[in-house]
Amino acid sequence: MYMMATSPNSMVVNTSFSRLGPLKLPTISKFKIGLCQFSVTLDKNQNLIHARKLIKVAAEQGARIVVLPEMWNCPYSNDFFAKYAEDYDNKDDSPSFSLLSEVASCHGVTIVGGSMPERSNGQLYNTCVFGADGKLKAKHRKIHLFDIDIQGDISFKESETFTAGDKPTIVDTDIGRIGVGICHDIRFPELAMLYRAQGAHMICYPGAFNMSTGELLWELMQRTRAADNQLLVATCSPSRGSTGSYTTWGHSTLVGPSGELIATTACEETVVVAEIDYSAVQLQRQNIPLEKQWRREIYKFMDISEAESLKISTCFVSLPSDTVL
Amino acid sequence: MYMMATSPNSMVVNTSFSRLGPLKLPTISKFKIGLCQFSVTLDKNQNLIHARKLIKVAAEQGARIVVLPEMWNCPYSNDFFAKYAEDYDNKDDSPSFSLLSEVASCHGVTIVGGSMPERSNGQLYNTCVFGADGKLKAKHRKIHLFDIDIQGDISFKESETFTAGDKPTIVDTDIGRIGVGICHDIRFPELAMLYRAQGAHMICYPGAFNMSTGELLWELMQRTRAADNQLLVATCSPSRGSTGSYTTWGHSTLVGPSGELIATTACEETVVVAEIDYSAVQLQRQNIPLEKQWRREIYKFMDISEAESLKISTCFVSLPSDTVL
Repeated sequence: MYMMATSPNSMVVNTSFSRLGPLKLPTISKFKIGLCQFSVTLDKNQNLIHARKLIKVAAEQGARIVVLPEMWNCPYSNDFFAKYAEDYDNKDDSPSFSLLSEVASCHGVTIVGGSMPERSNGQLYNTCVFGADGKLKAKHRKIHLFDIDIQGDISFKESETFTAGDKPTIVDTDIGRIGVGICHDIRFPELAMLYRAQGAHMICYPGAFNMSTGELLWELMQRTRAADNQLLVATCSPSRGSTGSYTTWGHSTLVGPSGELIATTACEETVVVAEIDYSAVQLQRQNIPLEKQWRREIYKFMDISEAESLKISTCFVSLPSDTVL
Repeated sequence: MYMMATSPNSMVVNTSFSRLGPLKLPTISKFKIGLCQFSVTLDKNQNLIHARKLIKVAAEQGARIVVLPEMWNCPYSNDFFAKYAEDYDNKDDSPSFSLLSEVASCHGVTIVGGSMPERSNGQLYNTCVFGADGKLKAKHRKIHLFDIDIQGDISFKESETFTAGDKPTIVDTDIGRIGVGICHDIRFPELAMLYRAQGAHMICYPGAFNMSTGELLWELMQRTRAADNQLLVATCSPSRGSTGSYTTWGHSTLVGPSGELIATTACEETVVVAEIDYSAVQLQRQNIPLEKQWRREIYKFMDISEAESLKISTCFVSLPSDTVL
């Protein structure tokens, strides 16, 4: 009944999808996604019950993949992260992981487990567990911690509590190659470009934008990551309810490969269920072939982790000033 | 009375602005910009008269810098580009360049000369002439040509007529370090990231988006290039009038460093005059320090032209598979 940990916290990519060139479709290229936007309370057990109920709702509406909000089992506050944290490598000590594992197995769905505070080797991380095929496929630890300081408005420093993850996370499933980012990760075009270069069909960003950045940036970031990289972007936020000074924006959304909103919602509790069809990605890339239009002789984007995994080293050589390149 | 060509078609950057770290302000950090959105006709001379009139309007409203639309002296059609093209390195043979030079000198404004078809060494380019201090400071030749083919909607291939430029263009002026892109160049986050890394305060994109991509992408692209790079973005389009099958979207806009619209317009002829204050860029970078949050050990963005100018060569070394990195 439990998801099996295979290689958590590592990038899990096989080579069946080409990195560049025409997009190959996965086994299942047309399916439904569920985005479970719900209110997170101080009562952890209540949050787990809530998640179980809404994953069931999504599955019963036909969702093959379900995305949960950032910090779905814990209020988004530095005061609570340590107290609510669990060790996801020890399932007997992790009621949240056990819950996800059981529900995923029961309903046969892939779960992008939003995020939860993780305790590991004396550190705390903002972590997404990604389960598919009844197994834990990967853990994504938030790479870009959210530090913001706007005088008279909002001040929040995740880095006071969390350690940042050090790896991108992209996972192969029967419903496609899926990249994961958590909230502030979406502010960095580089991460999405990296997933695009690795052949992602979709990027899922659990996120908890706030009232200051939500209206201005939440939809903008989702639409542009999708349009720039010509892939799907799915997000899931807690609903507007707030248990502290941090009020979340809501508006969980699915965006298509030309930056168009496919499905979205406002700030209340809801399960957004929407249809994904990767043929739209193929069509968009055919209509406007951005990939062929990249000017690799003018700029180059490098994925350092990829270079490492391929045992490629980059060196910079200073040449004498009269050297002809 | 004429702008002097110094080093056209090359990147003109001095080192007085730091590439990374706190943003230094230019001599003039608070000023007005004018975006001259006007109807382009089949009558070239009429287009020149129109440009002269609207630059004057902008200058009289206090604009220190004026941006013209993409293809402001020529209808946007492969049927006309060759016929309307001029050689901007030969001012005696270029009424459009002479006009801009004269008007810029007369009103003491910096001009981002939208774009015009350029003939040079037997090739045609989609080119922006950038004038400041009464001199031609640079030419930007559109790097990413616009080839699109959406069945039953729109088909347009600039590459059938134009040769693509091969250099980014960033210019130092008394009102800041300004990067230039033309229309489809805005679809590529890499170019904006490159300008950001080189210390740009603002990027100007003359552009002529169409009715298919305008509503979905024009504002989105402007706002995201500004927000992702925490700088100003200014665009200028022809107005909605169409002389052929290509109908332009309009909506010339100034966007601030958090992706907020500062000033915009609809599709009619108008001169948008708006206030720029670079202290907003400093504040935004201080509030949300994206630059400090970049994870350079995970991804790396390389500006090849910069590497060349610095005489730095990149080499990739394949290591034996058991090498520990």
